[in-house]
Amino acid sequence: MADWRGERKARDARIEAGRAHANGKVVPAGDAVALLEAVLKPGDRVCLEGDNQKQADCLARALSQCDPGKVHGLHMVQSGIVLPEHLDVFETGIAERLDYSYSGPQGARVAKMLYGGQIKLGAVHTYLELFARYFIDLTPHVALIAGVSADREGNLYTGPNTEDTPTIVEATHFKNGVVVAQVNEIVDKVPRVDIPGDRVDFVVEADTPFFVEPLFTRDPAAMTETQILIAMMAIKGIYAEYGVRRLNHGIGFGTAAIELLLPTYGEKLGLKGEIATHFALNPHPTLIPAIESGWVRQVHCFGSEVGMDRYIRERPDVFFTGADGSLRSNRALCQTAGLYACDMFIGATLQIDLMGHSSTVTQSRVAGFGGAPNMGSDPHGRRHPSDPWMKAGREAQIVGDPALMRGRKLVVQLVETFGDKLVPTFVEKLDAMELAKKIGLELAPVMIYADDVTHIVTEEGIANLLLCRDADDREQAIRGVAGYTEIGRGRDRAKVEELRARGIIRRPEDLGIEPLDADRSLLAARSIKDLVHWSGGLYEPPARFRNW
Amino acid sequence: MADWRGERKARDARIEAGRAHANGKVVPAGDAVALLEAVLKPGDRVCLEGDNQKQADCLARALSQCDPGKVHGLHMVQSGIVLPEHLDVFETGIAERLDYSYSGPQGARVAKMLYGGQIKLGAVHTYLELFARYFIDLTPHVALIAGVSADREGNLYTGPNTEDTPTIVEATHFKNGVVVAQVNEIVDKVPRVDIPGDRVDFVVEADTPFFVEPLFTRDPAAMTETQILIAMMAIKGIYAEYGVRRLNHGIGFGTAAIELLLPTYGEKLGLKGEIATHFALNPHPTLIPAIESGWVRQVHCFGSEVGMDRYIRERPDVFFTGADGSLRSNRALCQTAGLYACDMFIGATLQIDLMGHSSTVTQSRVAGFGGAPNMGSDPHGRRHPSDPWMKAGREAQIVGDPALMRGRKLVVQLVETFGDKLVPTFVEKLDAMELAKKIGLELAPVMIYADDVTHIVTEEGIANLLLCRDADDREQAIRGVAGYTEIGRGRDRAKVEELRARGIIRRPEDLGIEPLDADRSLLAARSIKDLVHWSGGLYEPPARFRNW
Repeated sequence: MADWRGERKARDARIEAGRAHANGKVVPAGDAVALLEAVLKPGDRVCLEGDNQKQADCLARALSQCDPGKVHGLHMVQSGIVLPEHLDVFETGIAERLDYSYSGPQGARVAKMLYGGQIKLGAVHTYLELFARYFIDLTPHVALIAGVSADREGNLYTGPNTEDTPTIVEATHFKNGVVVAQVNEIVDKVPRVDIPGDRVDFVVEADTPFFVEPLFTRDPAAMTETQILIAMMAIKGIYAEYGVRRLNHGIGFGTAAIELLLPTYGEKLGLKGEIATHFALNPHPTLIPAIESGWVRQVHCFGSEVGMDRYIRERPDVFFTGADGSLRSNRALCQTAGLYACDMFIGATLQIDLMGHSSTVTQSRVAGFGGAPNMGSDPHGRRHPSDPWMKAGREAQIVGDPALMRGRKLVVQLVETFGDKLVPTFVEKLDAMELAKKIGLELAPVMIYADDVTHIVTEEGIANLLLCRDADDREQAIRGVAGYTEIGRGRDRAKVEELRARGIIRRPEDLGIEPLDADRSLLAARSIKDLVHWSGGLYEPPARFRNW
Repeated sequence: MADWRGERKARDARIEAGRAHANGKVVPAGDAVALLEAVLKPGDRVCLEGDNQKQADCLARALSQCDPGKVHGLHMVQSGIVLPEHLDVFETGIAERLDYSYSGPQGARVAKMLYGGQIKLGAVHTYLELFARYFIDLTPHVALIAGVSADREGNLYTGPNTEDTPTIVEATHFKNGVVVAQVNEIVDKVPRVDIPGDRVDFVVEADTPFFVEPLFTRDPAAMTETQILIAMMAIKGIYAEYGVRRLNHGIGFGTAAIELLLPTYGEKLGLKGEIATHFALNPHPTLIPAIESGWVRQVHCFGSEVGMDRYIRERPDVFFTGADGSLRSNRALCQTAGLYACDMFIGATLQIDLMGHSSTVTQSRVAGFGGAPNMGSDPHGRRHPSDPWMKAGREAQIVGDPALMRGRKLVVQLVETFGDKLVPTFVEKLDAMELAKKIGLELAPVMIYADDVTHIVTEEGIANLLLCRDADDREQAIRGVAGYTEIGRGRDRAKVEELRARGIIRRPEDLGIEPLDADRSLLAARSIKDLVHWSGGLYEPPARFRNW
């Protein structure tokens, strides 16, 4: 007769073994290695919480210190490969297989280890896609997560950085897995219950607070006039044109510039209340002036941002917060909101090819794309109309029954024709393709596919790909905004003028924008200090951004 | 100076007003009307929990009994319009605007009230899409939800039917909303904490347990040989052909037949372990034989199904369950799993047109599509390869760089050429289009758009739309499996034979299937009683399915 409780019994046995190192559920940091050696089995699928922002770093260190004779062959399934320890475990054999989403700072080392065969790669997912697999075929046996505080029953307070935690815990706990949380402190009563205690098996009191990276802070002082010009074109030629109210901003200076132009340039255009009112977005410090000027109605967040806690606490009408006053973020739900409830995704990229495929992957780095491919895709499952979405759909419709008209998500790439170190953004072939071949990826690491991109904005103008009717239109539209790059110089001038006449390419002058007006004086804040001032002293930037 | 706490203060005032009718958080059923009149304001966005299965019926009755002089102009934002009370409130003026997903039993009345102008419709969403909007522009001011039990602190046990509750509560509570839960009983300690008490403001002890509909139960006794033939073709021609392991089954007899053929026909084909191992699926009773025969590794559920509780409790290695032993379902996460972690969606529809657009909407009903448009769409944001997905992608690829190859989700429609009352399934024009015109819908209620469907299976054969290279291929592929309907009779016979030679149309004989073998004796269970027997007596069918 089949044993239908094999997994359940194994879980009970793991917990039993772990209890030897615990006082109730509580484990001192010094015993974390022993705890992990007790609960982990070779070959386990393990989620070591490495989010976009917060890191379960104490547990990462403990895992890397386990005896590879006891703990080996693990299959790591986690959003972020961010800390050195996330890769160290692959060098010692503690871990063997990897499925992940994002590895910003470790991208080069990931590429090397893949090439060297030290990591067996499953795939580089979007966040939401990896979360989805937690419930189907990548369910963790053990989750190692991070919180701010816990009580002795294991009730967990994750504070502003809730992020991935509820999703990881739900997949692990309810499918016979073991949940180990590191917390900054054990308290009698948590300020609010982000994770109910009956889902948490062990609580490790960490020696230091968990690590958080201020990933979304952009210093206005570093913003260039080119970025300001691009931002002006985006506001007038896209936000206003389509009436985009619900949106997500990607990471980078381009969208940060837009945020800082809303209360100045946007105000002058009379757009307040008409655009950019509802966001799926992390609490970008550069959003403060727009919030303070009454532009922003509501922001739901994936995670938090270092230094924004006091500000958010004082703006509960704008942000999602708990009874304790601090932000409640949730990456899975915010990614879902970005996918299905936003009319536009606007972000940056490193390379765009002649068809419009784009990628941030370079020849030596496997960085992953986080949430961009999810939010920067046109969801066919959407069934609610909105003005911007329907207008984009009408522009895209080539043939077919008008009664079957549907909308399109706006997916906008903001780029300068030449990026850092004057490397051209526009290329014949993405570096991503070369890398895929070299390390044998089954799927080329394209961030956003050509058929999802609707607009490309550079300092030379806006290319509206929705209005392109064939491959030649499209190629010349892209060449037509590619400036002095080789791709740009290869344009067919007559065709580009035709595209301009058709409104597919729009130059600053076509939009009534004088490039000389793109001045830093237009920025609502020109420094981090200005942002602090806008916030009434509530924004507390991390030390490395304090240059006054 | 701006007030950044207006919403927060309004929430506090609502709770304060509600407290007058409560003992702590607990409110007797008899005071529910008074409570709602105290916490609701005219024009509020309200989520009255109406899920795919469970219904907050006690609160629905209370809302419908409120004084329209006090409570009026509400904007209802909820998954299901299922109970009469969900529409009664629009007749009295208590509610005015509606955004929803599914209205199976009330579809005809919704259509009438839309036509009569009694309901101002926002849109008919998919579940996940509506949840997404809860965090962006349809955040509820008040949520009226349902649970099994609660303690006096408001900690909530939702039991097997957790469904939409965590998502509704997260959106409402953390954005200054008020959460009112009806529960079957107040207890000293809940069996597990599905919703932490600090997110629940009021608990109403309902006079009767909340209503749950056995929506996913299909009686094997009603299964026809045509359905069995279609199921055999799907298993051999699609499941086996693509090696589909991760999938979602829609509602209906077609997929129920597949479930019952896995342990018999599937076993004979040697497919055990090769197909249908991981599901995003409600606990269909017809899945029991496949589970008992060791076919199914894991099932994550949107909701539960009446009568399946004891069975699930004894199969914790297959289902997601809590420490209390019962199912933990979660519609938002399971829909996400269906979207991003499954390689196939297979379901039924009522009408298919010549391009392949399909709908379950008829001329007199606005039923909504629940989760089908979401799971039955090709998600462009997916970035992980799998064999079935890549094979489908290769079949679909017409032109372009092979290095840019990506996969495709399999989206399969299982239909008989003639449906109930011999109404043809294949039509020139969907009834949905007529309805959209009549009641002025901005978007035609198409369930799955033509560009997402990959296969249509009828008793005449399989049409593989991935392999079609132009509109004519596609039209004739559809006509070629449309049997004796007018659409089928309008086929170009030579073209259809050409499509058959190209493998685009496959007849039973092309698959090595003898239609005479499609016999009810192939079903692993031929009655509800057989299912009870397979379950070792653990499945407890509701009375209306007990016919022995």
